[in-house]
Amino acid sequence: MTQHIGVDLGGTKIAAGLVSESGEVIASLKVDTPRTSAADVIAALVKVISPLKAQVPSANVCVAIPGFVAKDNAEVLITPNLPLRNINLRHELARTIDGNIIIENDANAAAWGEYLFGAAQGYENVVMLTVGTGLGGGIIIHSKLYRGSFGIAAEVGHMTISSDGLLCGCGLHGCWEQYASGSALVRTARELAGATPEAAAVLLSLGDGSVEGIQGQHITKAALIGCDVAVRSYQELGKWLGQGIANLAALLDPDVFVLGGGVADAGDALLEPVIDSLSSHLTAKNFRSVPEVRVATLGNDAGMVGASALARG
Amino acid sequence: MTQHIGVDLGGTKIAAGLVSESGEVIASLKVDTPRTSAADVIAALVKVISPLKAQVPSANVCVAIPGFVAKDNAEVLITPNLPLRNINLRHELARTIDGNIIIENDANAAAWGEYLFGAAQGYENVVMLTVGTGLGGGIIIHSKLYRGSFGIAAEVGHMTISSDGLLCGCGLHGCWEQYASGSALVRTARELAGATPEAAAVLLSLGDGSVEGIQGQHITKAALIGCDVAVRSYQELGKWLGQGIANLAALLDPDVFVLGGGVADAGDALLEPVIDSLSSHLTAKNFRSVPEVRVATLGNDAGMVGASALARG
Amino acid sequence: MTQHIGVDLGGTKIAAGLVSESGEVIASLKVDTPRTSAADVIAALVKVISPLKAQVPSANVCVAIPGFVAKDNAEVLITPNLPLRNINLRHELARTIDGNIIIENDANAAAWGEYLFGAAQGYENVVMLTVGTGLGGGIIIHSKLYRGSFGIAAEVGHMTISSDGLLCGCGLHGCWEQYASGSALVRTARELAGATPEAAAVLLSLGDGSVEGIQGQHITKAALIGCDVAVRSYQELGKWLGQGIANLAALLDPDVFVLGGGVADAGDALLEPVIDSLSSHLTAKNFRSVPEVRVATLGNDAGMVGASALARG
Amino acid sequence: MTQHIGVDLGGTKIAAGLVSESGEVIASLKVDTPRTSAADVIAALVKVISPLKAQVPSANVCVAIPGFVAKDNAEVLITPNLPLRNINLRHELARTIDGNIIIENDANAAAWGEYLFGAAQGYENVVMLTVGTGLGGGIIIHSKLYRGSFGIAAEVGHMTISSDGLLCGCGLHGCWEQYASGSALVRTARELAGATPEAAAVLLSLGDGSVEGIQGQHITKAALIGCDVAVRSYQELGKWLGQGIANLAALLDPDVFVLGGGVADAGDALLEPVIDSLSSHLTAKNFRSVPEVRVATLGNDAGMVGASALARG
Repeated sequence: MTQHIGVDLGGTKIAAGLVSESGEVIASLKVDTPRTSAADVIAALVKVISPLKAQVPSANVCVAIPGFVAKDNAEVLITPNLPLRNINLRHELARTIDGNIIIENDANAAAWGEYLFGAAQGYENVVMLTVGTGLGGGIIIHSKLYRGSFGIAAEVGHMTISSDGLLCGCGLHGCWEQYASGSALVRTARELAGATPEAAAVLLSLGDGSVEGIQGQHITKAALIGCDVAVRSYQELGKWLGQGIANLAALLDPDVFVLGGGVADAGDALLEPVIDSLSSHLTAKNFRSVPEVRVATLGNDAGMVGASALARG
Repeated sequence: MTQHIGVDLGGTKIAAGLVSESGEVIASLKVDTPRTSAADVIAALVKVISPLKAQVPSANVCVAIPGFVAKDNAEVLITPNLPLRNINLRHELARTIDGNIIIENDANAAAWGEYLFGAAQGYENVVMLTVGTGLGGGIIIHSKLYRGSFGIAAEVGHMTISSDGLLCGCGLHGCWEQYASGSALVRTARELAGATPEAAAVLLSLGDGSVEGIQGQHITKAALIGCDVAVRSYQELGKWLGQGIANLAALLDPDVFVLGGGVADAGDALLEPVIDSLSSHLTAKNFRSVPEVRVATLGNDAGMVGASALARG
Repeated sequence: MTQHIGVDLGGTKIAAGLVSESGEVIASLKVDTPRTSAADVIAALVKVISPLKAQVPSANVCVAIPGFVAKDNAEVLITPNLPLRNINLRHELARTIDGNIIIENDANAAAWGEYLFGAAQGYENVVMLTVGTGLGGGIIIHSKLYRGSFGIAAEVGHMTISSDGLLCGCGLHGCWEQYASGSALVRTARELAGATPEAAAVLLSLGDGSVEGIQGQHITKAALIGCDVAVRSYQELGKWLGQGIANLAALLDPDVFVLGGGVADAGDALLEPVIDSLSSHLTAKNFRSVPEVRVATLGNDAGMVGASALARG
Repeated sequence: MTQHIGVDLGGTKIAAGLVSESGEVIASLKVDTPRTSAADVIAALVKVISPLKAQVPSANVCVAIPGFVAKDNAEVLITPNLPLRNINLRHELARTIDGNIIIENDANAAAWGEYLFGAAQGYENVVMLTVGTGLGGGIIIHSKLYRGSFGIAAEVGHMTISSDGLLCGCGLHGCWEQYASGSALVRTARELAGATPEAAAVLLSLGDGSVEGIQGQHITKAALIGCDVAVRSYQELGKWLGQGIANLAALLDPDVFVLGGGVADAGDALLEPVIDSLSSHLTAKNFRSVPEVRVATLGNDAGMVGASALARG
């Protein structure tokens, strides 16, 4: 049975794995992501790929990156948080690594992973949303990953959710990820904790006690044990996610939406408000099937495992 | 060369045509659309299909309807402006008409027509927007018509463009078609003509002289000869179309958007503000290809011709 | 007891009355409003004022106009629907009419009428909203009519309620009166009646049976007898009124809001959704008094009666 | 010449001053604000008031507090960031302090200070906006401080600026202060600095180098020396301030808006985008006077000096 190499280049860690055709991780390696230069990032990628490649020389490689990849699955157009811009990453890696190499967007890879081995198995049309610092997306249409005409489909985070809303770093106003992302979750929790600290007691106790010290994982933990401010913060996240999902459902009418990223750990505290909001924002819901909404099941491995499957070709 | 029958069931007329594989209309028939009952609509459909079917008995039939069609291409779920609801239209027609019959959404049929024979020829990923009383849509993905998991994809008119905006007949607030449709164009022109009648002189002269008498075709004519209020009305329509198109581009990254419906006659008076607005609402436009925007070229035949091609199978 | 003359210059009728200090209308006259020229409007005003003035030569005169009046209570800056622009109306009338003449905005006059003799009697700080073709306003602060530094305060209809919303004839987007006015009520009812005619049966039966034939007074009647579409149209109007009223309450913290114009006839069908919406949009409502909301009680006479009281000086 | 005592109870400091009738600070004291209990706050107030009172025993006292004060100028209803809620502060202070004592909202006091001695001298109708952690307001109407019917007028920060926008700690969505406040300024600058760190080099160099380390005063300094991200952050703040000011101008038609708080130090970097935005959002601007917009001139003393003047009675 063949094995291929999937690499997930994240903002803080690079994870590479040798993965079987059934999605089993045979071996894996992890290093910190350098943020100093493109050359350093490439060197770090080589460092994690080479040992795995040595193990299975025939393995293909797919590197999932947090940014725009051109239609050729080779050139990185831009990565908002890493020093890679207009660089042919396949070409750069091919100086050292033999064999087939492709580059893919990380949310696309995660979507493919969930489609093959996770929450979206058995469906034909799937939208995956990765809720992290920003909001990423991946689309499966007719059981194929949909990359768009120029390779950059599924930039869901920069669809407008609130016309004339908050300024986004991308230069537009009201981008969905300003309202529906891990960053937005933290902002909401801090706002509410500042206004009603007594209702945030549990949440505050999980961090350093300060409003500014509230982090995403604290909110998830606190929501699971019923802390009012944490629960309301997830409700707010769910409201915005559901509102945007309703738009995507009107357009794409998929079987299922899969929610990934750290917030997936919140389970029903996230899912319930998402489904409520979807229901109240979905057009013609009495005359149509309502798509399912599920949390991702592959966790942090989704990108790496999905990338390995894309490497298979 | 085989010929098939495409039928466009509109709100006021039913048009049926025998169409060649190259999209040429060999013969066609038109009758008024009855709005009295489902039985009357079916009888009218049979009336236009039968003579064409007699001409080419082997011809397949596709009926394009203004509403939701189930995944089976047979059942009509709902048509907002016609008395068809939860009815198996294929089955009903098959009582009288022999051979293959399929039912399709009208904007999907028009999209397929423009893809094969019109403004979207040669592209792989296409979004068609039909700007009429409402705002319909059709999506081509990987050179195939995309119908969604339940048959009702591309309900673009009911994506939210203005959160907490105008109430739509569908029950939601802020649906795109409330801002970007022929109806919205007329409303804008009447509003502006009421506020500044002197700037609407040409526009008013094309109708009965009253603000309430302004109709869509007057606005198109007046815009083409530079009437200020008509031009500004098209700019407003273009602003809203471009804003929504930017969202679809972020999501679907298609090659081209095709604009159909009567407003297509306005040409650059429509296209220019659409393209301006798309440009100012498109995320990361310096790092990506901007999709083309074109006006449809098949005019009123798009639905019929597209349906005939879908009938081919 | 002295009597003074109040004139209400409306878009279709001019009503003039000789009114006692207690607000009793002693005599009144009504003519159609000419829309041909400023001279014709002035002639029509003289025609209704002169006989009343002949009756009580010492009477002062106040003309309430639907537009901007300068700080001097003499110059009309603009009337959106009448041919008066940058004209010193006091000066023009003084050519024929002796004695004191002042010009006032019509919503201001109506507010003063309701304050002295109607729904706002006994309150110190009052906001009146006149819901007609547009949305006008009048403000009483510390028991005095508040006209603003340049005479044009209380242009509530052009406060923004939906950022990046509908285009208004004034050139801005999202003005409150696009969502909360008699015109908006009619638009909503037509939209809903078009989508669900069966739920609008009573409403449609009151007019000519067509969706386009629906008028404001039909909606009021139909709402009072429980017609679903009419009730929902008033709920939608109430939602938007309440949302804006909440903003005004946060700013002005008045005792009472008075709702005037034809919609006042709807009574609780209007008031209940307004109060609900105010309640859900009012900040800090657990720590403050919620202002009252009342319907106007002077009906069509409010402007004339209020003007006569302002004439008193 | 008489002197009175003004106290500014802030979130971090309590400042008390003995102030002359001409607004000159004769003596002043400052202590940290305790956040432990109401009793501690009261004790701290007594500590700074008593020595000044000893100096001029006949002096009246006015305490400006950051929260709602009831109509009686005695009871504090709520202070969002201090432990004072439903407490008769005048009564509590009167246990120790002799003579006249009144309690006032801090933005009201600052408005009164700017009206008498600062940027709003000589005007009759004034709106002051204090741009800090939140957004406060004070209104002068007919040369009198306007407190509203229940004492809580001018809660401008919780007027809705973006319908269905960001969740505010007050429980509503889209409150103006979520978009136009010092906190919003910092959020914008961090967002832009994260997306384009190279354009934020100067700004980042003024703090600890991290995006999270960016503070308000860094943005002001960086804007004054032309740092791109800082300038754009002020433009964004100005856009939102101007949009809301346009609404207030439509309603209140005042002579002048005064902008206070730390952002006033940015001068034209703030004023220019505010004035641009006001101009593009002001209705009927060709037919009306546009109000002036000025930065406050009393700086941190505005609240204390204004309070002393209110103490005068």
